[in-house]
Amino acid sequence: VRENFRRNLADVQAELADLADTAASTVEQATTALIKADLSAAESTERLNNEIRGRLTEVENQTYDLLALQAPVASDLRILVMVVRLGADIARMGSLAGHIAETARLRHPQHVLPDALIPAFEKLGEAAKRMATEAGAALRSRKTTDAARLTSEDDVVDQLRLDLFQRIAESWPYGAETAADVALLGRYYERFADHAVAIGDGVIYLVTGLPAEQGAE
Amino acid sequence: VRENFRRNLADVQAELADLADTAASTVEQATTALIKADLSAAESTERLNNEIRGRLTEVENQTYDLLALQAPVASDLRILVMVVRLGADIARMGSLAGHIAETARLRHPQHVLPDALIPAFEKLGEAAKRMATEAGAALRSRKTTDAARLTSEDDVVDQLRLDLFQRIAESWPYGAETAADVALLGRYYERFADHAVAIGDGVIYLVTGLPAEQGAE
Repeated sequence: VRENFRRNLADVQAELADLADTAASTVEQATTALIKADLSAAESTERLNNEIRGRLTEVENQTYDLLALQAPVASDLRILVMVVRLGADIARMGSLAGHIAETARLRHPQHVLPDALIPAFEKLGEAAKRMATEAGAALRSRKTTDAARLTSEDDVVDQLRLDLFQRIAESWPYGAETAADVALLGRYYERFADHAVAIGDGVIYLVTGLPAEQGAE
Repeated sequence: VRENFRRNLADVQAELADLADTAASTVEQATTALIKADLSAAESTERLNNEIRGRLTEVENQTYDLLALQAPVASDLRILVMVVRLGADIARMGSLAGHIAETARLRHPQHVLPDALIPAFEKLGEAAKRMATEAGAALRSRKTTDAARLTSEDDVVDQLRLDLFQRIAESWPYGAETAADVALLGRYYERFADHAVAIGDGVIYLVTGLPAEQGAE
């Protein structure tokens, strides 16, 4: 039973890794929607988002069934909770990409972003996509080094967001509404990145049994 | 063993209810910090927030031990996950109140809000505090009516936030930085309220065994 459990748990992690890749696609599509005022990219974001939700419900049910088949000890329960938490992180990433796409959809056919800010959001979009992909890779490889790298990538996103705030605070010719949109969009990318880091920390926990601070190499 | 489990689970829910009350205090203090540029209220927010985190870790450990003592069936595992999720909702509420207080702290001794916007944020603060208190009451009473009421309160918060956006979009004499601050603050209150609703939905699930849509009266 025990071996079966480990093997099935690996299946669950592989499915979560695929879903992290799907989250990478949602933020890529959302960034395209934002930068190009592209409605079809906004719709793809929503479609991918719904796909994530549906598949996560299945993964969760699978995990419950898996555990109910054996007499779980406390460490199994912690693994269960971690798996469900990782699923919730991926779901939030999809929702946040959805908010980005929705901002583009609401302003369409106008563009949300002034041209001068497009490079900053291209960088945010690339970093967010890369972090989701790396979160998926960490779930697949179960290497704590892969997971730990996410934290330094997160610093890049935080810095990009700080730069945007600096621009808003110093001289801002684009009006209050765009300032509000940019502040919120920056927040969505930041939270997306935070959830990718949380997935990395979760992998460290699953591999080492220790919280990220002690478990990372 | 079974009866013991039910009784201990009730203890865990009572502790979560107390923590929801503490979350109500964090957002109350944070709103005071914001509206009065009051540093000591910002510090109280942080202190309460740390208290929530510490006590949640204990509740979680208690829940794992509780379940490991018996042979849990799938429905017990769902209860475990729901308890951990409710804890995570309360933790996020504390963090969001922390972001509100931190905004006040960063701008101190200046005030973040122009006088004209103080009434709107007083209302947001009151609604958020009330929702956290009601989430605690629902955890205590285990009545689905208490839980379901949170959804209509949430509409109030959403409307207040939409009004703020309207003001930013129409005529805004307060500059881009304040627009960015107000947009983010509105988002923090909105998310705080969302987590209170999620706690209500969790109570409905714990009482009825059904997701909120089917389980609510």
